[in-house]
Amino acid sequence: MFKLHGVYAPIATPFTGGKIAYDKLEQNLKFWLGSDLEGIVVMGSNGEFVLLSSEEKEELTRFVCARAKGKKPVIAGTGAESTAETIRLGRKAAEAGADAVLVVTPNYYKGDMTDPVLARFYTDVADNSPLPVILYNMPRNTGINISAKLAVELARHPNIIGIKDSGGNIVQIADMIRNAPETFSVFAGSASFLYASLALGATGGTLALANVFPNECARLQKLFEAGKLTEARELQMTLIDSNNAVTGRWGIPGLKAAMDMIGLYGGDPRPPLMPLAEANCEELRKILAKTGFLPKR
Amino acid sequence: MFKLHGVYAPIATPFTGGKIAYDKLEQNLKFWLGSDLEGIVVMGSNGEFVLLSSEEKEELTRFVCARAKGKKPVIAGTGAESTAETIRLGRKAAEAGADAVLVVTPNYYKGDMTDPVLARFYTDVADNSPLPVILYNMPRNTGINISAKLAVELARHPNIIGIKDSGGNIVQIADMIRNAPETFSVFAGSASFLYASLALGATGGTLALANVFPNECARLQKLFEAGKLTEARELQMTLIDSNNAVTGRWGIPGLKAAMDMIGLYGGDPRPPLMPLAEANCEELRKILAKTGFLPKR
Amino acid sequence: MFKLHGVYAPIATPFTGGKIAYDKLEQNLKFWLGSDLEGIVVMGSNGEFVLLSSEEKEELTRFVCARAKGKKPVIAGTGAESTAETIRLGRKAAEAGADAVLVVTPNYYKGDMTDPVLARFYTDVADNSPLPVILYNMPRNTGINISAKLAVELARHPNIIGIKDSGGNIVQIADMIRNAPETFSVFAGSASFLYASLALGATGGTLALANVFPNECARLQKLFEAGKLTEARELQMTLIDSNNAVTGRWGIPGLKAAMDMIGLYGGDPRPPLMPLAEANCEELRKILAKTGFLPKR
Amino acid sequence: MFKLHGVYAPIATPFTGGKIAYDKLEQNLKFWLGSDLEGIVVMGSNGEFVLLSSEEKEELTRFVCARAKGKKPVIAGTGAESTAETIRLGRKAAEAGADAVLVVTPNYYKGDMTDPVLARFYTDVADNSPLPVILYNMPRNTGINISAKLAVELARHPNIIGIKDSGGNIVQIADMIRNAPETFSVFAGSASFLYASLALGATGGTLALANVFPNECARLQKLFEAGKLTEARELQMTLIDSNNAVTGRWGIPGLKAAMDMIGLYGGDPRPPLMPLAEANCEELRKILAKTGFLPKR
Repeated sequence: MFKLHGVYAPIATPFTGGKIAYDKLEQNLKFWLGSDLEGIVVMGSNGEFVLLSSEEKEELTRFVCARAKGKKPVIAGTGAESTAETIRLGRKAAEAGADAVLVVTPNYYKGDMTDPVLARFYTDVADNSPLPVILYNMPRNTGINISAKLAVELARHPNIIGIKDSGGNIVQIADMIRNAPETFSVFAGSASFLYASLALGATGGTLALANVFPNECARLQKLFEAGKLTEARELQMTLIDSNNAVTGRWGIPGLKAAMDMIGLYGGDPRPPLMPLAEANCEELRKILAKTGFLPKR
Repeated sequence: MFKLHGVYAPIATPFTGGKIAYDKLEQNLKFWLGSDLEGIVVMGSNGEFVLLSSEEKEELTRFVCARAKGKKPVIAGTGAESTAETIRLGRKAAEAGADAVLVVTPNYYKGDMTDPVLARFYTDVADNSPLPVILYNMPRNTGINISAKLAVELARHPNIIGIKDSGGNIVQIADMIRNAPETFSVFAGSASFLYASLALGATGGTLALANVFPNECARLQKLFEAGKLTEARELQMTLIDSNNAVTGRWGIPGLKAAMDMIGLYGGDPRPPLMPLAEANCEELRKILAKTGFLPKR
Repeated sequence: MFKLHGVYAPIATPFTGGKIAYDKLEQNLKFWLGSDLEGIVVMGSNGEFVLLSSEEKEELTRFVCARAKGKKPVIAGTGAESTAETIRLGRKAAEAGADAVLVVTPNYYKGDMTDPVLARFYTDVADNSPLPVILYNMPRNTGINISAKLAVELARHPNIIGIKDSGGNIVQIADMIRNAPETFSVFAGSASFLYASLALGATGGTLALANVFPNECARLQKLFEAGKLTEARELQMTLIDSNNAVTGRWGIPGLKAAMDMIGLYGGDPRPPLMPLAEANCEELRKILAKTGFLPKR
Repeated sequence: MFKLHGVYAPIATPFTGGKIAYDKLEQNLKFWLGSDLEGIVVMGSNGEFVLLSSEEKEELTRFVCARAKGKKPVIAGTGAESTAETIRLGRKAAEAGADAVLVVTPNYYKGDMTDPVLARFYTDVADNSPLPVILYNMPRNTGINISAKLAVELARHPNIIGIKDSGGNIVQIADMIRNAPETFSVFAGSASFLYASLALGATGGTLALANVFPNECARLQKLFEAGKLTEARELQMTLIDSNNAVTGRWGIPGLKAAMDMIGLYGGDPRPPLMPLAEANCEELRKILAKTGFLPKR
């Protein structure tokens, strides 16, 4: 069965004229598929999945899977507010050739998303999913936390293979690792705590920053696994500022601006998201440049 | 132009076998359309709108507008994460014959939903809406608050006619009322603070409890407007427990169970929402009975 | 027994050279004791009570009680982290001649301050207090909320006569009023929601703004009680901006600057609190001036 | 100058009959001073410092310093709401022979505790402190976070030598380590994230659990420093459950019950804190026993 390991990029979705820009995406994919990344996540939070129609989601997944085939595994984000739509999108992802699905917590009815309700949701989804299921904890966007207790309980389901935890609570990550069976993988959801997560036993990460610095993010894990801890730790420290910029601080607008800066196509996010302001672009460029990882001109 | 006044019910969406149960909805609508309610809100939070597909949303709006025509105004919830989809649903609501649209804040990318981004979103929506726009503040579900400052700024748009504020911050409600132009109406988003809101100058409310006790909710406002303050206040006090039960405490499962108890069709919510547990049903029945408003058998 | 009614000012504590400025306080007290206020609260949050030593607290209470004697009732803030110190300060307040004590929730060990622990704390305090006890709910400073359920439970204690609720959750205030016995009074903790609280049955308020505009705050309640609701509501609307400025927005530095502006002695707060910045003083003056209540020069 | 390194226990304060039980403390100190701990913290959060009078604080510090003299360094908690009292307690700690002071953020006036106010507070304290100052970040109790930016700015003060960060945000800890000068030490504030903090460059920790398992906590760091990472990581995993029990889950009541279980004197906390309930004691004993670290009988 598919196993979660290594560094994945949750790829951005490019737009032109209000439509998904498949020509630009094709070029971006060449870069990512030719990099040291382990794999690709399509329709993670950074893929603006909540801004896509059902049809766009299906088409986008098919497009990415077709390009990645034989090169790198693809994980498809299929979480939706309703159980039925989540299952439906999962089946489409399987047809498209994805390797696993990443399922965010339903989140609009926060008060109802108790542990038993979430357990039932994930069990229903996993029971009906042709592909292995990865839990997706994203409290900053959802206002909901998948507790270690719940994750460990769900880890016993044969079709639930891991979690992407973007919350960054390192004790919670440790709790999941120490209590879940070995078959269950814990993935860091941000480049800023990749090193600490690996140190505790995480098997990799899905990192927004890997859109921009795929080889450097992958190298962090390789250094760690080779026991070169001092170098890995230094690289971790180097990456934090850039990562903070393209996630928490400036979100998707920051990520897309950074992509433009390294020669990929970022472009404008879909409204209501707005492009990064001019002044912030300047600051972002400086932050990225300080890493020394920007391509030479 | 359409003006917000009086008590509206944000109606529940009934399901059977995973589909919208239009026959049940027809019966429920007879009750609501024959009541003292001022009007109907279709696809508010209590209508499980995030659990419906785009096609279901359009069809449901058409169905409700057709039944309400000539009887009561209909406000259609059309908020979506993307600006374009929000505008598209608004046009469909206009075609269906709705009187206004209720637009919740986009909320998945919470960190990006700054005041300028929300101002741009609502302005774009209002500029492109054939129907008058009502802002919808629902912090409990969205994790985002429409500040009084932002509401007052948006109140200057000729196509933005009011706000439904479900947050319950009474000072914020006062701030909106005192600073917005007279043409802008402030609606309480919950029966628990209807009286306090009216006392400060709100013009009505959209109340989950009005699904269950439409005449009693409408009576509260009539008593208030007739200057019968002691009676209005007492009625307010009587309604709070029931309202807490069908909103905050037990959410949509509680609302649907309460509907079943008064002879409407509530049924099960769409998963991942689960029906109210047996034990809670018993408690809910007692809470509703204490009001003295349950129909005699 | 002493009964809570009307508008109280939770008076600021003036300092010069790091010491309590009793001469300045004497002058301020003349103003407040000669005003339409119902009474005085010494060592509320606005009195910087957590910045005073035990000795200063005792001395300050004695001083204020001596001046107020025969003029207006005095409520003394006596809450401390430890039960024993709270009881000790309450006895000193009784010796000094205070009429009641105001007891804030202990709050450093937030995780431990469950309802049973708070119930035990207030019961111990009330059992050992020579003076009637008023609960003090101040979530913004304490991070703890006294729920309506807990307040109603404590309201049955013969020596607990009311609550000052500064949280501003109007449904919680309604819940306390409708469920507690008549002997238990609910006080608004801020001028911004005094009118809404009175409308629901509160009997008055302890208002930071009453330091600055005592007669106007008292007039709001008098208008309400005389049934002049339109005027009361308008006055409420007028007072909100000033109140927001001297509480939430600029805190004690704002309150003391406002006192200086009306001819009282405000002076600098005790460090680490810092005086209001020059630029903000200018804005504050405009906000206060807009009310029309500033004394003519 | 004194340098922060290794594992410290923030010792509990024992009480009998409402007074500090110095005889019990003497026995407890023998255990801790004879252990592998690097040093002792008196009047940290676990020392119930907010429940002690000024006189008790001074006396307790003198007592502990006298016993520890020549054996282990002592860090004294001296934070108070007022700057002046914090400075005064710091001088007393110096007279008593402490090696450094640990200064928690003032926290009652949360809204006023902006970065500039906190910067001024810590600068004033450090300027006037005979002993080196350690910042103390304890968001769970204070509701305030010392940001990495503020800590790094304060790290330039020659008399500010480090921070105890109990918040557990591992990215914040990384940010402090990578941006502060080498002279500034970062200490983990909880045994649950000691390993992750050390991996990123922290120099030790002040750990509630070190009251109960001092040698095991110290061993974790020794293993890490010896490059025995697998063993260190395993020990970390073993300690988490016990640590969660004696901090977040059951607080000081849990810590004192655990002390009783290992043969120290824990006793009852000072009210309003209440002793751990019988049922929870049983569960706690099991959690501690599972570590294999309880003393043999």
